[in-house]
Order: sequence, then C-alpha cells, then structure tokens
Amino acid sequence: MAENKRILLVSRPMGMPKPDNFRLDEAPVPAPAEGEVLVRIEMISLDPAMRGWMNEGTTYIRGVALGEVMRAFAAGRVIQSRHSTIAEGDYVSGLLGAQTYATMPAHQLSRLDLSLGPLEWHLGILGMPGMTAYFGLLERGKPQPGETVFISGAAGIIGSTVGQIAKIKGCRAIGTAGSDEKCRYLLQECGFDGAINYKTEDVEARIRELCPKGIDILYDNVGGDILDLGLAHLARGARVVICGAISQYNEPTMRGPRNYMKIVTARGTLTGIIVFDFQERYPEAVAQLSQWLKNGQMHTRTDFVDGIENFYPALMKLYTGTNFGKVVLKV
Amino acid sequence: MAENKRILLVSRPMGMPKPDNFRLDEAPVPAPAEGEVLVRIEMISLDPAMRGWMNEGTTYIRGVALGEVMRAFAAGRVIQSRHSTIAEGDYVSGLLGAQTYATMPAHQLSRLDLSLGPLEWHLGILGMPGMTAYFGLLERGKPQPGETVFISGAAGIIGSTVGQIAKIKGCRAIGTAGSDEKCRYLLQECGFDGAINYKTEDVEARIRELCPKGIDILYDNVGGDILDLGLAHLARGARVVICGAISQYNEPTMRGPRNYMKIVTARGTLTGIIVFDFQERYPEAVAQLSQWLKNGQMHTRTDFVDGIENFYPALMKLYTGTNFGKVVLKV
Repeated sequence: MAENKRILLVSRPMGMPKPDNFRLDEAPVPAPAEGEVLVRIEMISLDPAMRGWMNEGTTYIRGVALGEVMRAFAAGRVIQSRHSTIAEGDYVSGLLGAQTYATMPAHQLSRLDLSLGPLEWHLGILGMPGMTAYFGLLERGKPQPGETVFISGAAGIIGSTVGQIAKIKGCRAIGTAGSDEKCRYLLQECGFDGAINYKTEDVEARIRELCPKGIDILYDNVGGDILDLGLAHLARGARVVICGAISQYNEPTMRGPRNYMKIVTARGTLTGIIVFDFQERYPEAVAQLSQWLKNGQMHTRTDFVDGIENFYPALMKLYTGTNFGKVVLKV
Repeated sequence: MAENKRILLVSRPMGMPKPDNFRLDEAPVPAPAEGEVLVRIEMISLDPAMRGWMNEGTTYIRGVALGEVMRAFAAGRVIQSRHSTIAEGDYVSGLLGAQTYATMPAHQLSRLDLSLGPLEWHLGILGMPGMTAYFGLLERGKPQPGETVFISGAAGIIGSTVGQIAKIKGCRAIGTAGSDEKCRYLLQECGFDGAINYKTEDVEARIRELCPKGIDILYDNVGGDILDLGLAHLARGARVVICGAISQYNEPTMRGPRNYMKIVTARGTLTGIIVFDFQERYPEAVAQLSQWLKNGQMHTRTDFVDGIENFYPALMKLYTGTNFGKVVLKV
C-alpha cells in the first residue's frame, strides 16, 4: 500500500536553512473528506517565499507550525474526488505541501489545462511566479514603450518573465544575474538588452552604461546592494516594484534601502506586488502568457531536481543562486 | 555706509555641522543689475534641507560652493528695484541667502502680501514648509475622513501644519516629538489626537494604542527608527509620504527603512514630496492656509533667534531638536 512521503518542518532556521530543520517522514495516504479531493503530487515548486513561511508569523501569511508538512505549491493528478467540479484524472495545483499525496477542499485548487503547457509550467510561468511577473510589471510598473526596465534576480522565473513581457511591451530590459551563463541566457534566449553579472562586474558602472537615461521601472527581487544601486539611477517618474528581497531573507536583520530618498528626488513611487490580489484575473494572464510561449515570443526554463528526499538541496539552490530557471522537485 | 554681513560656507561638515564650517564676513552691499532688485533681508529661514546643501552635489540641488554665501530662504524689503513688477518697499522672499543684503533677478522672488500674515509666516506656514505640508499631505497622502495620519517630527513647522490640515480634513492626527512640552503643544494648540514623546515613551506600544486600525498616511520627516516603527503599523492601502529624514542627515551613512517590505504586504505606496513641483499652485495653498489661520482653525509658532552672528546656533536647533516651531533668524 502506498505511503505519503512528507517533508516536515521540525525546527525554525536562524539565517540559512539547515538540513536538520526538515525531516522526511512517511504517513498513511489521507482519505478525502466530503468536498475534498486526493491528489498524487507529481511536482513540488520551490519558491523564495518559503523562507518567510519557516518563521513564526513574521509575514502576512502565518508561519508553518513545527511538525507540520512544509508549505509548498505543488501540482499533481486527482486520484479520488468527492467534489463535483473536479474529476479523477484532472490535473490540479495549489498549496498542497511538500509531500507525495495531499487531500484538499476542491475550491482551494486550480484545475490545470495541460494543453496550455507542460505541468511544470503551471508551477512556473503559468503559475504564481508567472502571475507575479505579469501583474507586477503591468499593473504596478505600468510600462510604456521605450522605457527602461531594470530587473534584479533576472534569471529567476519571475525576473526572466518580467524582462520578456517588458520586451513585448516595447521596453528595454536590463537584468542582473549571478553568472556569465545566466547573463548569456538573458541576452540570447530571453532577448534582454543588457545583463550584468553582479558577482564579477562593477554593477554601478554597468547600470550607468546600460541605462543612460535612468531606470523607469525597477522590478526588484533581491533587495540589498543591488536595490540601492538601482535606486541611485532612477529616472524622473520611476516606478519601483518590490517583489522580493532574496538577498535579505536569511540575514539576521533586514537591511533597508539606503537610497530611498532617491525615490523622492526622482518623483518616483514604490509599491509592491502581492499576487493573490489579482486572483480573479489569473485566467487572462495564463491565456496571454501561454499564447506568447506558443508563438515563440517568450521562453522559460525549468531546473528539475528528482526525488522528494532532495527537497533541501533543491530549496538551497534558490538561496545560493545556483538554480537556473524555475526550481521544481519531481516526485 | 552699510555693509553686507554674510555667512559663508568655508568647509564641508562631516556629520554634524561645526561652527568653523561657517564664517561671518562683511562685503559691500551689492548693486542690482538690470532686472534685479536689492533686498534688505529681515529674516532668514533655517531649514533641515540646509544640511544637504552643505554637501558637494549629493542632492537634487547642487551643493553650495566653498566660500559662497550659505544658501537660505529669506525675506525682506526691497530697497532698490530695476524691474517693473517689484517696487521699492515691497516685501519679498526667495533663496536670498544667509546675509543681510542680496540682489536677485525679480522673477526669482515672490512678492509677499503681509495682510495674509506677519513676515515670519511667509518663511514658515505660508512659505516653503507650509507648501510642503499642504501639497505633501493633500496631493501625495490624499487623506480621507476618518483615516489615521501619523506624523514624525510633528512639532516642527511642517509636521504641525500637516497634522492640523489632517484634522481639518476629518482625519485623526498622531505625532511624534522630542519633549513633553512639544507633545502638549501638539495636543493642546494643534488639536492632535495623540502625541508620542519618542525620547521617553515606548513608541511601538504607543503607536499600537493610538493607531488601533493602523496608519493610513505616514508623513515622515525623520527616517530611521521612527519610520521603521510606523511602517510596521501600516493599514491596508497606506500611503507613505517621505518629506525628509532629519535623523539621518548627519550620519556617515544613511540608514534605509528595514521594514520596507511592510509597504508591500500593506498594499501601500511610498512617494515623496518635492515642493517645487507645485509652484504654480502656491497661491491657492497660501490663500487657504491664511484663511484657516485667520479663522483660528490653525496655529503656528515661530522660534526666533536674534542676530545673523547666531546663524550657527539657530541652525543647530534643528539638528538637535531643540527648536520649537519654525526657526527664523532675525537680522
């Protein structure tokens, strides 16, 4: 009989997560209650936001309790349904957790249309990260043709999607990434106008060179030094869109943007993107992104890791920047 | 024959300004060129922004050159005019500098209507600080009746004006200040709903108590810890208006707001106020503020210091927080 393999959060990390913050256990496969479905999970998404979920209620979503299954977006196939809107055999995604089976109320799941793209895309460019890129850029950044969009953490799934949408909207896209290979990917596959290797290049000099008229939209995934350098080069009327701060999540104290007064002198605004606020419009974004992908106007990349027992190394790819594209754990 | 007494910037401060960064000298009273007027200055305004002007081009306005008259807003009487729009005997204000006489092109000066209020008001509540308060709150903060407006540095000329406009607009006004006397002033004379002595009280506990539904508008004059505590208590949809960061101007490195991600989770926005952007609408604001003052709906307070030789102690009142109201040097 099948067992449910689960990744439990057993202690809260201080700074970088350690292997012993998690434990792999086995439990009976749960039975769905009325209104619920049972999902055999095929892919688990690794997301930077997980670091916040490991804390005790410091974010806008409550923290994962100790001994609980680690919270995670995941996708899989329904093997038993006790709700009329979802059938056995349907593919679904949702906050199913880092485990191999999960039951969940049907209304908390999204049914996936695999004709729009393979399953992993539904955790990436057609899932939360894609939605975050789409609404963050279009609704918060409000790009105008000819503007310069500067994206930190650009080789990640959100950053690479933001840059490609920016290009489609007639903007220039400039991104930072942590290796020459990632920079080549941005330039050659994603069509960015400029890519800066922040580990080996003089980021400020390169921003000056690549954004001679300043940055109109700063889409920030990283915080810290790169955010500050971007702020120092805002154009008049710039929009700063804060999506994440991955450079700071494992620091003992968050560092604030020292150059925040540059937003004032640039007559700029700073806002953020919380993707759930656009839930009702996900179908529009999924349809649009999938069309761009099919047309070849957009590319996306998945960094697969095999086996639920590799949850920890897969997670750490994010925080060490060694991932290349959307990190997905295949189970 | 009259001499022009001038405060020259002779060296650039590191951190807090020192007396020897300035020198009082005497020079012949200048003669106005065609299109200029000669003003006998009666009052010099001391403003937090002066600290930025002492640096070499770190702000959006170029720094004062060494050996130049220290930049300052000032007001006085025209004693000679070579321009048709300003007559001898008119009162004017502008960036006349920290000196006793100045020539300036007429178009760079504002003619003052002393029927609206005494001369010192034209450097305070009816001058740049009042305009900054008025447009910063109304155009950037966009207050709605019933909202909570949190003002740091509230006993200063900008903060006290912001709070009183907020009250007139039907908001709750909560402010921080550095002494019990200032807090009493906010509560008793300015009609604030709450005042927090940040030097003696637990600011976070008091914010929680005084802003139980969170902060809808955070009007920040100080930066640093108080900004962070305010950010931690933003209400959904909050507007953060950055006006200044006086706690940071004399620090070797600016500290950024560690809690900036709270703007994201609150679905808030951060913008700034640059008063010059509203230049065309100053008359509207002056008329409105002067009416409120005449009606007794608003109060303002001037902290006079006598004698141009006391420029330095007058300036330091601002950076040590020992001023009480708008600091004006009478010459």
